[in-house]
Amino acid sequence: MPRYPGVSTSVMRRLPRYYRFLGEFMRTGVERISSREFAEIIGLTASQIRQDLSHFGGFGQQGYGYNVSSLHAEIGHILGLDQKQPIILIGAGNLGMAILNYMNFQSMGFELIGIFDRDPRVLGRIAQNQPILHSDGLSEFCRQHRPAAAILCIPRSAAVEIAPILVERGVRAFWNFSHYDLSLDFRDKMVSVENVHLGDSLMTLSFRLNNMLEDISDPVS
Amino acid sequence: MPRYPGVSTSVMRRLPRYYRFLGEFMRTGVERISSREFAEIIGLTASQIRQDLSHFGGFGQQGYGYNVSSLHAEIGHILGLDQKQPIILIGAGNLGMAILNYMNFQSMGFELIGIFDRDPRVLGRIAQNQPILHSDGLSEFCRQHRPAAAILCIPRSAAVEIAPILVERGVRAFWNFSHYDLSLDFRDKMVSVENVHLGDSLMTLSFRLNNMLEDISDPVS
Repeated sequence: MPRYPGVSTSVMRRLPRYYRFLGEFMRTGVERISSREFAEIIGLTASQIRQDLSHFGGFGQQGYGYNVSSLHAEIGHILGLDQKQPIILIGAGNLGMAILNYMNFQSMGFELIGIFDRDPRVLGRIAQNQPILHSDGLSEFCRQHRPAAAILCIPRSAAVEIAPILVERGVRAFWNFSHYDLSLDFRDKMVSVENVHLGDSLMTLSFRLNNMLEDISDPVS
Repeated sequence: MPRYPGVSTSVMRRLPRYYRFLGEFMRTGVERISSREFAEIIGLTASQIRQDLSHFGGFGQQGYGYNVSSLHAEIGHILGLDQKQPIILIGAGNLGMAILNYMNFQSMGFELIGIFDRDPRVLGRIAQNQPILHSDGLSEFCRQHRPAAAILCIPRSAAVEIAPILVERGVRAFWNFSHYDLSLDFRDKMVSVENVHLGDSLMTLSFRLNNMLEDISDPVS
């Protein structure tokens, strides 16, 4: 049994958002908050928040609301952010380097233990205190260091080739930036995939912008 | 009235995915596909696909299925990908540069018309055929060139400061990588915001990995 069975994808995806906002409340000195106030700020309904949190035990107190710092810590724990799952990054190009510079893995449940690429121009460079290693050594590295997760910042063709090898070597989670829906390959396996399709997000923005501009340019209808 | 009123967020977010897969079918020489086959590959149900597309008129033919290239073109049109909405990028650090190198704006409904930063080390450099300009000139640039959209690759504090100025200058869409939910500021305005919270995605992966590992490490339950 998973630790939290029956949690829907939508509930799961709202947890990081709750966590972020609670962190923000802490930074601005808010010590407790009612589900109604929380809902107002985050753009949900109070009952949705209560219902979401009820999957994990529920944390508020009638008439008091939520203690901000303890709810923040609880959700962090639920998300596994207090873990240090070993993670590797494959593909130290622009995107890979941006992710290395941009993300604080330690505060998000991971510990970066290796960076891999094939490009001789980047091999040996140091990023996040790690030398960039040649991908040829990847399989042996996994055997020795047992990464639980991998960040794929490589093209589609490379991802298709490398992912099954990593799964065979024990990798159980992919943060996938390649333009390829890895999740479909692994849907029957115990492998989690977060596909990040930045293009989908930009296309959604295009839809919303054009759909709205239609509104502006057509005042008659 | 928007061009496509009553389209839910979920439907809207599935469109880019349909578009991607259809593009893939085209590349591999698939000329037509039934909603059942399409559903199988994309991991949805046939009736969901049919229902989603019915918001835009419905495109399949009973007994024939979908013509792949014409459905691809239709969805591209619905998404506005055949438009050239002027877009600017603010913040040419690692993340901004990765986005410039990684995204093909022209195939996604946008035309990049300006890049801005404050860092003297990057000013004047060329990226995507554009010189990186000083942010001080941003307001005047908007007055002259009327960007419809902006990509924010700047810290939270800068985003909070710059976004309202851009909105005043006519920007109607933000692709927001700053760690700040801009959408909440503009929820009553005609402004579209796509917040990209990479951290949320990584936290979700952490949850899924740990929730699953619990499963592996606890064979008794």
